[in-house]
Order: sequence, then structure tokens, then C-alpha cells
Amino acid sequence: MQSQSPSSRPAARFFLGIVSAAALLSMGSAGAQEPVQPIVPHKVTNPAQVTLGKKLWFDPRLSRSGFISCNSCHNLSMGGSDNLKTSIGDKWQKGPINSPTVLNSSLNLAQFWDGRAKDLKEQAGGPIANPGEMAFSHDLAVDMLRSIPQYVAEFKRVFGHDKLTIDEVTAAIAAFEETLVTPNARFDQWLKGDKKAITAQELRGYQLFKTSGCVACHNGPNLGGNSFQKMGLVEAYKTDNPAEGRSAVTGNDAERFNFKVPTLRNVELTYPYFHDGAADTLAEAVDTMGRIQLGKKFTAQENADIVAFLKTLTGDQPRISLPILPPSSDATKRPQPFD
Amino acid sequence: MQSQSPSSRPAARFFLGIVSAAALLSMGSAGAQEPVQPIVPHKVTNPAQVTLGKKLWFDPRLSRSGFISCNSCHNLSMGGSDNLKTSIGDKWQKGPINSPTVLNSSLNLAQFWDGRAKDLKEQAGGPIANPGEMAFSHDLAVDMLRSIPQYVAEFKRVFGHDKLTIDEVTAAIAAFEETLVTPNARFDQWLKGDKKAITAQELRGYQLFKTSGCVACHNGPNLGGNSFQKMGLVEAYKTDNPAEGRSAVTGNDAERFNFKVPTLRNVELTYPYFHDGAADTLAEAVDTMGRIQLGKKFTAQENADIVAFLKTLTGDQPRISLPILPPSSDATKRPQPFD
Repeated sequence: MQSQSPSSRPAARFFLGIVSAAALLSMGSAGAQEPVQPIVPHKVTNPAQVTLGKKLWFDPRLSRSGFISCNSCHNLSMGGSDNLKTSIGDKWQKGPINSPTVLNSSLNLAQFWDGRAKDLKEQAGGPIANPGEMAFSHDLAVDMLRSIPQYVAEFKRVFGHDKLTIDEVTAAIAAFEETLVTPNARFDQWLKGDKKAITAQELRGYQLFKTSGCVACHNGPNLGGNSFQKMGLVEAYKTDNPAEGRSAVTGNDAERFNFKVPTLRNVELTYPYFHDGAADTLAEAVDTMGRIQLGKKFTAQENADIVAFLKTLTGDQPRISLPILPPSSDATKRPQPFD
Repeated sequence: MQSQSPSSRPAARFFLGIVSAAALLSMGSAGAQEPVQPIVPHKVTNPAQVTLGKKLWFDPRLSRSGFISCNSCHNLSMGGSDNLKTSIGDKWQKGPINSPTVLNSSLNLAQFWDGRAKDLKEQAGGPIANPGEMAFSHDLAVDMLRSIPQYVAEFKRVFGHDKLTIDEVTAAIAAFEETLVTPNARFDQWLKGDKKAITAQELRGYQLFKTSGCVACHNGPNLGGNSFQKMGLVEAYKTDNPAEGRSAVTGNDAERFNFKVPTLRNVELTYPYFHDGAADTLAEAVDTMGRIQLGKKFTAQENADIVAFLKTLTGDQPRISLPILPPSSDATKRPQPFD
């Protein structure tokens, strides 16, 4: 992935998506040729690193306030999102954009709505140091961890050396995030041949999802996450949100309002929708997408069918046992959330 | 518990504590006569109610912002506390008092530092409606839950009727909280006869804890939680914190600065200490307590011994599998954290 130019990919993928969608429009039954593939369960290769990453994921001491952890905005009880239009940051700052779900995010071609991080490891360092989010710094986060003997010992055990830098921190968090996939959705059962796994209405919704062109962008195992696309292709999208999308990363004005296509996996759980969180419900999101991306006004029945299909994409949620965090030592600097 | 007058209990308990402590000062070994008893594991009688209570415990939709859950300030990854001097409430308001641990709180004679709630059920309704904490109302919380079909069905299954009021909500949360006990601390193993469970230094610390009088207030299975005592008995406690303690509940000025004695169970995890969170470390807390409650200046060695003993009180932390929360329906009112 890293060897390809991100800016050259979206267009290629877009047309590829259209082509494969078109090729498959006539298919009505489950099979290897569907434009959507089942989620493959994750195989953990380094369980100790995942265990450490899970602690860091839940540790609010990685924020300036000692109050905000990764899980605050990517809540694993709520589809890996916070179900808010935009997130709440340090000192209750209003976040600039809707928190994307962490679930299945390892399948994305890049991270953040604008793809500015090439992978989960690079992404993990972002919020920690973002003054509007966790508002800490990498140095302070590392200082905190180094002041806690149990963390120091665990990093050494996991990485086999004494170095404890932001590199090890983000590597461990990413290793945990990679486990957060959601296989076994009813739709995946259907894809694998269990014809009774979804209802007639849900199947109708899927057919419509394909024939209407939704699948041009929302395809692959993650039903999205594999290309950048313009928000407002047929009709301009009206929003107060100032996010510019891909052009802010590439400097290419042609990519203005191009955002990473969000996954539709577990979309029932990850409301509200769009980069500005403007759509509260799936019905609203489907209606808006039909209009501004496809130039199509879905009837109430069509909308309901597609929504029914989308709800078959909720997979097995990761089973997380809450970690017990090692306590701060006397030397650990105490958070001062109100200073 | 409810049939006794809360205001008459503290004094009685205080003298009882002194008497029993005095009677036991000469005892050096583990046995039935120790002023501290092991934590008894909790037996769940209604698992369905506990499961529902756990969901509510982790559900931030019980707050106005959709961001703050019970677990935000009583974090089960961090000894059931938030490890902040005072908590962060709605819109980042500074809380008035240190969040006490939820662990073993079912053993307390009353809830909150000033004991204004007679039990966990009564306590659970407090933060939800407190404008400085979760800033919601009982009616809005119940409206939220009633808008979610899975919650409605689960409440009906658990309680056997269609009524979904704040009574059922707080009963379920309390049922979950009752499970949050921490048996099997090394000190409990020692109490049960395993002489090797604690070190010579830790045993010295315990002896000193008894002979110095700490045990007069910190006794019973929870090493506290069973009486109200004046903060600053021998020497006035200096603090900017305006909390008045028990007198704010009883109206009895003689009970000014009387607070519920905090449990010392898991105290290694529940820093910072005191109702104002002023003591960052156990060493500092032990020193202050010695001076202002006992008129005693512990030597560095004595302090270290007591701290070593206190760290033997960390029990098995509750094993919590993170609940998956039922998603909001289209009818659920969306939180507006920035309005």
C-alpha cells in the first residue's frame, strides 16, 4: 500500500469500482463474484503486544487531562465510535469532524477522513498530540509511561529492548486495533452461501444497493475505506463543516471535498453519518447519498430496503475484557485538567 | 441499615472502633479477632439485572452530552476511580469533590463522602441529574432508554413488568455495582492464615497501623466506609475545598467536616487521596493522617512500612467484559454536547 501514490489511487479505484459493479449488476445470488467480501477474522500473531496495546487504548493518562482515552471517541461499546456529530476534546473543545469507527479500520487504504495517516500506527499518534483532542505531546505521553514501572517492564517484555518511545506506543495501539474486526455479519453468512441468513427485504435492499451504484464506492470487504471520493458528486453537499478533505493533504485543489469513503460495516451502530455527522439516521443518510452522489431519489420503500440491508452488516463485535491499568507511581506527573 | 439514624451512628461506631482496636492491639498474628476482615466474594442472585446494570454503567447516553458515563469518573480500569483530584463534569466543569471508588462500595454504611444517599440505588440517581456531573434529568434519561427497543425489551425481561422508570434504572446499576468487590488481596490471604502472603515489612506496617490508631476508623472488611469521622481531629485540615461534610446533610454544625471514612481497599489504585484529592501519594496521605488525626509524626521508615501494608490491600479487580450497547433508534433524541 505504502508504495503507491495515494493521490493516484482514488481515481483508479473509482473506475475499477464502477467497472466491477457494472460487471456484477446482473448477479443475484451469493458467490465469489460479489463486489462485497466477508470479513476475515483476525489472527493474532503477537498477543503480548495486543494486550499492551489494549491497556494504552483505555488509558486516559495519554491525554493532558487524564480523562480522555482512545476509547472516549472510538467507544468499543458503541461500534467503535462516539455517536456524536463531532467529538469532544480537551476542555470540551468541539471536534472538527465526525470520529470514524475504529472497527475494521485496518482494512482502510489510509486513516482519517482525509487519509493523512498511511496506517493505524501513524494515525495513533495523531489524537494524543492534537491540541483539540487529547492535547498531550508524544514526549509527555512517553514520560508518563516511563514513570510507571509495570509499563516499563511490559514494554521491555513485548519489544525485547529498553527503548520506550512513541514508536513502541503507537505500534502497540495499532496491534490492538488490528484485532478489532467484526466477522460473521448476517450478510457475510449470506455471502458464504447461507441463503436464509438475510430476509427477502434485505436481499432486495442489497440488489438495489448494487443496481443504484452505491457499490461503486462501497465495495470490498469493508464496503468502503478503499478509495477517496468527492462528497457531492452530482449535487453539491451543503455543510457548515470547514473540512476540505483530500486536498488539504495533497494540495491538489481537484481533490477538494474528496473524503475517504467510510466503511458501511456496523453502520447501524456508528450514527450519526458523514464527515460532519449531519445525518442522524440511516434513512437520512441513504436519501442524501442517493441525491448528491447518484442523482437518484429513492422511494420510501427503496430507502427502507437499503436500510434493512445495511443493518445486516453488523458483525460480531470484538469481545473486550476491560484492562486493569498499572497505577501511576509517586514519580508520575499528575494531570491538571483544569489548568 | 436504613432503620438507624445516620447521625447517631458515627459516634457510636467511632468509640466502638477505638474499643475494638484497643482490645486487639496486642494481637500479632492472623485470626478471627483481627479488626479487619477479608472481603467476601459477591454471589450474583439476579444475573440478568447485573447484565443490564453493566450496560447502563457504561452508557454515556445517560448524560446530557452523550459523553459521560458512570465509568468516566469511577473507571473500572483504574480502581473504580478517575485518579483526578476532582472529577470532570458536563462541559468540563470542575467537580466539587474527589470521586470515591465504586469498588466494595456496597459495604459502606451510606454513599457519597457526606453519606447523603442511604445506598447504592439512591446514589446512582445522583450524578445523572447533577448539573455539574452528567447534567441530565431522570425524565430525559428514561425517555432515552424508552426510545431504544432493545433496552425496553431487556428492562421488561429483567423486571417482569412494562414499567421503565428511574427506579428500575438505578436498581439495575446498583445490582451491577454490588458485584464490584475485590476479594483475595494478599492481606486477606494473610488474614485467612497464609503467613507468607505478606512480607515482614508489610506485617510491621499492619502492626503500626493498629498500634497507631489508624484502625480506629479504618476497620471492618472495607477498612473504612462504616463511620463518619471529623477530618482534622487533632490538627485542623487546611483546604480550599468548600465541602462541609456531614453537617450539610444533617444540619448539625457539630458534624462539620465529618466525612465518611474512605475504604483503604485498593488504595494503591485510587490516588489522589482525601475528599479534596490533595494528597497525590500514599506517603503523603499517611503523613497527613498521622498528623491531623492522630497527632503523630511517622518516621520515614514507619511511613514506608504502613504504605507497604496498604499496598497489600489490592484485591482481585472485577473482570469486566465490555458491554455492547443497544444502538439508538431513529426516535432517540440525539445529544447536543455543545449547545
